[in-house]
Amino acid sequence: MNKINIGLIGYGVVGSGVAKMLLKRKSFIKNKYHTEFSIKTLCDRSLGKKDTKNLTHTKFTKNYLDIINDPEIDVVVELIGGMNPAKKIAQQTLQNGKHLITANKELMANAGQELFALAQKKSVSIYYESAVGAGIPIIQTLSEGVVGNQFTGLFGIINGTCNYILTEMTKSNLSFDQALKSAQEKGYAESDPTLDINGMDSAHKLAILVSLAFGKFIKIKDIYTEGITHISHDDIEQAEKLDLSIKLLAIAKMTDDKIEARVHPTLISKEHPLAAINSIYNALYLNADPLGDVLLSGEGAGQMAAASGVVSDLINLAGKGQNAHLWSNLSDENKKLKTRKIDDIESKFYLRFMASDKPGVLAKITGVLGRAGIGINSVTQKQHHQTSTVPVIMLTDYSTEKKLRSALNTIHKMPVVKAKPVAIRMEKLW
Amino acid sequence: MNKINIGLIGYGVVGSGVAKMLLKRKSFIKNKYHTEFSIKTLCDRSLGKKDTKNLTHTKFTKNYLDIINDPEIDVVVELIGGMNPAKKIAQQTLQNGKHLITANKELMANAGQELFALAQKKSVSIYYESAVGAGIPIIQTLSEGVVGNQFTGLFGIINGTCNYILTEMTKSNLSFDQALKSAQEKGYAESDPTLDINGMDSAHKLAILVSLAFGKFIKIKDIYTEGITHISHDDIEQAEKLDLSIKLLAIAKMTDDKIEARVHPTLISKEHPLAAINSIYNALYLNADPLGDVLLSGEGAGQMAAASGVVSDLINLAGKGQNAHLWSNLSDENKKLKTRKIDDIESKFYLRFMASDKPGVLAKITGVLGRAGIGINSVTQKQHHQTSTVPVIMLTDYSTEKKLRSALNTIHKMPVVKAKPVAIRMEKLW
Repeated sequence: MNKINIGLIGYGVVGSGVAKMLLKRKSFIKNKYHTEFSIKTLCDRSLGKKDTKNLTHTKFTKNYLDIINDPEIDVVVELIGGMNPAKKIAQQTLQNGKHLITANKELMANAGQELFALAQKKSVSIYYESAVGAGIPIIQTLSEGVVGNQFTGLFGIINGTCNYILTEMTKSNLSFDQALKSAQEKGYAESDPTLDINGMDSAHKLAILVSLAFGKFIKIKDIYTEGITHISHDDIEQAEKLDLSIKLLAIAKMTDDKIEARVHPTLISKEHPLAAINSIYNALYLNADPLGDVLLSGEGAGQMAAASGVVSDLINLAGKGQNAHLWSNLSDENKKLKTRKIDDIESKFYLRFMASDKPGVLAKITGVLGRAGIGINSVTQKQHHQTSTVPVIMLTDYSTEKKLRSALNTIHKMPVVKAKPVAIRMEKLW
Repeated sequence: MNKINIGLIGYGVVGSGVAKMLLKRKSFIKNKYHTEFSIKTLCDRSLGKKDTKNLTHTKFTKNYLDIINDPEIDVVVELIGGMNPAKKIAQQTLQNGKHLITANKELMANAGQELFALAQKKSVSIYYESAVGAGIPIIQTLSEGVVGNQFTGLFGIINGTCNYILTEMTKSNLSFDQALKSAQEKGYAESDPTLDINGMDSAHKLAILVSLAFGKFIKIKDIYTEGITHISHDDIEQAEKLDLSIKLLAIAKMTDDKIEARVHPTLISKEHPLAAINSIYNALYLNADPLGDVLLSGEGAGQMAAASGVVSDLINLAGKGQNAHLWSNLSDENKKLKTRKIDDIESKFYLRFMASDKPGVLAKITGVLGRAGIGINSVTQKQHHQTSTVPVIMLTDYSTEKKLRSALNTIHKMPVVKAKPVAIRMEKLW
């Protein structure tokens, strides 16, 4: 029997889920994996308020050094999130020769490279399955499941809050605000949902996926990031009519030794498997050569889904032994790869202008696009009653971002255009 | 740099794909995984007919003992399929302390348990990702990706030929024979497609999945297996009308310490993600506790998809080191678990009777079902022109197989019923 002592730092939703799962699955894990896990010490800054009565053999502390400096602890499970003090905890854990398990996407996105180097120096491993898509084995699939393949593209629905909101706007006909409120009531969104709905949460996760898929650490600031707050009901309705779905996608592609990485609402065909990933479900769609396209999906959020990823990490740590080399712990990066700037990326666009309902408006807008060399594939002017402003919807041919942005700025300044034009990229996934 | 000598046995479609991929990815694998693979010796019984000009540093033989007895070979890749001589090759490989990589589902389904025991005794590993779903990381996901979870159900589309045929029957309106012919023309079906269309190929793969998911080795004869040859165009059409899809599913469930395992055409909701898995794509849908439902899909057949799984196995072998313990190499089984007989399984059924177009026929059929205690939820009698026989479609409430079979036997004997009644199980997947 393999015995592993855990130091658990952070006893919030996920931390208490891990403790619950280890207790419930104790004999299952013993029988199947010949391993006994014990939470030797738990560190949490507001211990008094938490229910820890099931942790009968655990020591409690508010000082994480009690865990990190304990020679009997084999692995530190960090579940507090954020950079500070998580980064210090991670560094000291590795420095002291202990393995690290974390669900902290911000930490891994921003400090992954230096933590991997430290882990390698100290011959320990970092497991971080729950940092992307909770317990869905996304990290595992990229780093071990389909190794030997080269990836050309990846497309992720990796924020459950946004996917829930967009699904509710589509299926239940809710406005953005109503859908957000529903997400908060069901516990799918934080009381401050900013990092979810502005796309930053997806950007952190995308940085991790890019490092695994392309062997390159990119900075968060190099990921073009756009949230879902500007998506209106008109857009959802138009998408439906065009047999398209709007999804917040995290996209990365590699062409000609350049990587592009971006997070934004994206129109995709309703026939594509990603269009069927609804509500809080997450998914990753991978273009792998020579395997072909692979789809992986499941519940990407929630206490037990996240706890499940952490427990998988623990069992894999036990199975691989203390000296395994993990492909997910990148020791060097591909320095030849450059990032492609958003300005240079070409897409087809869905455009929505809120314009005065007057003759000649359409001609003015299409004139600007035409002079910029942006082809238009279709135009729809929606009839609104009781208002003098109507949505005008256009689908463009391929255009660079730069050209399109400049044309939209010109159009925005026209007096007949009443709001900031909305542009949603369209992506052909196969 | 890690150097690994391969002995490759079998140079058919998959074997030559592996050689091609190792050559094409040579520097990629060196850079990313710090490993150099070399095919030291190739064994194939019809070497003369094959194009081996790219294998410049490889020795050729028709005697597999030249590989198995070579102390310089670290791993044997067996890609000949079938039981004989594959089983002997596998046994001698392990006996001689070499690792085994195989894509042989029949071998792993029938002899997995004894091969794992031998591997454990000799401290070597067996990798078999390509035995199910080619390079889609299904084995990896079940044995490492979502460990710590208990599985309650699994639903697989794991035969590309059948999925292609059913998709073509639905989307291109082909008959079974036309769709099979199309599959053969495209290279998706063997010239003798028996093992695919009668469900046996899926049954072998299901036995492997059951051992991984439930820790129990079941015999092929304990898997109720039914192919797709009896599915007619009437059934496809009716399914469409009911918003259902017909898929050949491999199903395993565990309830009350009993496992049920079966392969048969199944009607599922068009809204379920598995209904969107079309053509030669394969998929596995898993009910995992506490993670929730997980879907994994991709191309489940074809030269490079299968080769990709074998190359992943090679890289993982290199990464895990020679002494890793693989959770996929089960050393003991859960003896408490029993298998549930098909007779005792309850399903809702879609029934089709080809009956004389005469008054009173419906009453006779429903009478038999009623006396057997089988509830009927709906009846549709299709109008056929120019024939005196019409299809009568019924949807039943839950019934055990035993009760239903007995009622169908009685109905089949009625003079007004012109062909063997067709029964397709309906499965509620979520």
